[in-house]
Amino acid sequence: MNSIVLLGAGNVAQHLYAAFLNQKSVEVIQCYNRKGIKLHKDQKADTITTDITNLKEADVYILAISDDAVEKVSSALPFMDRLVVHTSGSVPMKSIDNRNHPGVFYPLQTFSATKKVDFNKIPFCIEAERETDAVFLKKLASRLSQKVYDISSDQRNILHVAAVFVNNFTNYMFTIGNEICEENKVPFEILHPLIQETAKKIHEIEPDKAQTGPAVRNDFHTIERHLGILTNDLQKQLYETLTKAIQSKYGKEL
Amino acid sequence: MNSIVLLGAGNVAQHLYAAFLNQKSVEVIQCYNRKGIKLHKDQKADTITTDITNLKEADVYILAISDDAVEKVSSALPFMDRLVVHTSGSVPMKSIDNRNHPGVFYPLQTFSATKKVDFNKIPFCIEAERETDAVFLKKLASRLSQKVYDISSDQRNILHVAAVFVNNFTNYMFTIGNEICEENKVPFEILHPLIQETAKKIHEIEPDKAQTGPAVRNDFHTIERHLGILTNDLQKQLYETLTKAIQSKYGKEL
Repeated sequence: MNSIVLLGAGNVAQHLYAAFLNQKSVEVIQCYNRKGIKLHKDQKADTITTDITNLKEADVYILAISDDAVEKVSSALPFMDRLVVHTSGSVPMKSIDNRNHPGVFYPLQTFSATKKVDFNKIPFCIEAERETDAVFLKKLASRLSQKVYDISSDQRNILHVAAVFVNNFTNYMFTIGNEICEENKVPFEILHPLIQETAKKIHEIEPDKAQTGPAVRNDFHTIERHLGILTNDLQKQLYETLTKAIQSKYGKEL
Repeated sequence: MNSIVLLGAGNVAQHLYAAFLNQKSVEVIQCYNRKGIKLHKDQKADTITTDITNLKEADVYILAISDDAVEKVSSALPFMDRLVVHTSGSVPMKSIDNRNHPGVFYPLQTFSATKKVDFNKIPFCIEAERETDAVFLKKLASRLSQKVYDISSDQRNILHVAAVFVNNFTNYMFTIGNEICEENKVPFEILHPLIQETAKKIHEIEPDKAQTGPAVRNDFHTIERHLGILTNDLQKQLYETLTKAIQSKYGKEL
């Protein structure tokens, strides 16, 4: 039986608590957060503490807290030589105070409070200073998910930038599509199936080979027509910038 | 029993043929394409013609052909006063020669030759000059799909521009994510579940309310770090442009 102390009360902490609750070989023996918030309706009150000097001994301490707090909270831990990991995509492993053995246990997904999470297919990015800790963390992650990866802090940085494009900026493309529809009183839901198909295609074909549309076809007639339809300057500017970017990529390659 | 003559031999023609084959109340009585290509392995040879002057009488003639060919092919039809529709997202209904009654029967989805299509959830955008034709086309579409919409040519133009953002430009975001991973030897597949979740979220929450990431948080520290990581000038420029666009949107609204 592996014992865990979980620090933090946000979305990641709550989803991890619920996931570990289903694992017989793992027990979250204690949770710490400043307000004494329960992470789950079934959690017993005596497993919650608001006193960081009162933490129990465990195999691993998981800091599921905000990026900015990792350094400070890890420095406040009242012990040494134990395994302490954070769950962040962008914080270096070295940010964890070096009195303990640092590691990273990063589930790469967007979590929202209301939506139930199936960890089974969520990639876990694992890093640890000591090889034995890396083995332990990978075993722990593999109890929750089929997808466990050795990822260095540098690689995690790369994933984080790439995630800005495929998640943040993609969602912004959906926002613009929604704006265009709303401004013209066309239901955005008509585009929902197209959006799902666009995402599903990456499982079958590399995105640079799946590129379609007027930009990659150099269809100037349609591009001009679209620019004439757009009335919002920012939308128009982004249409032009992204069209030129696609054309420069495929103009050179084709 | 409704009778259909289907013109064209591309992806849309093939997928529509297969879909109508499963409908007992509808029969594709003839197909026309210049090369006499079979649209389906079960299609009988005597239902294919390469002679446009030899078309049978039918309730509707569906031009599942390239955008540029709609005007020319509709002008070459050897009859008048019949219902003739195209399947294009961007061609005005009026492009169909006015000797016949024009209409639009547009399934809004990306089709690829190899992948089987479930029309059931694909939105059909219907337009017709005559009300009776609109009713007929909507009934026909509803045999294939649960989602049938009255959409004017102007609204179709709007959907087409919005689709460039949510499909073409989104796929380009995936391409950049893939490039960044490949350049740094990190497996892009780690980001696949995040991409699926990003797309799924639109069913639950409006995209402008789902926006996350350093841009919307005004997290300058992370933005600077990301710009430092990106070595490709085009990627860097797009990161800056999209970050500024998101900041200007949410800076004003928040």
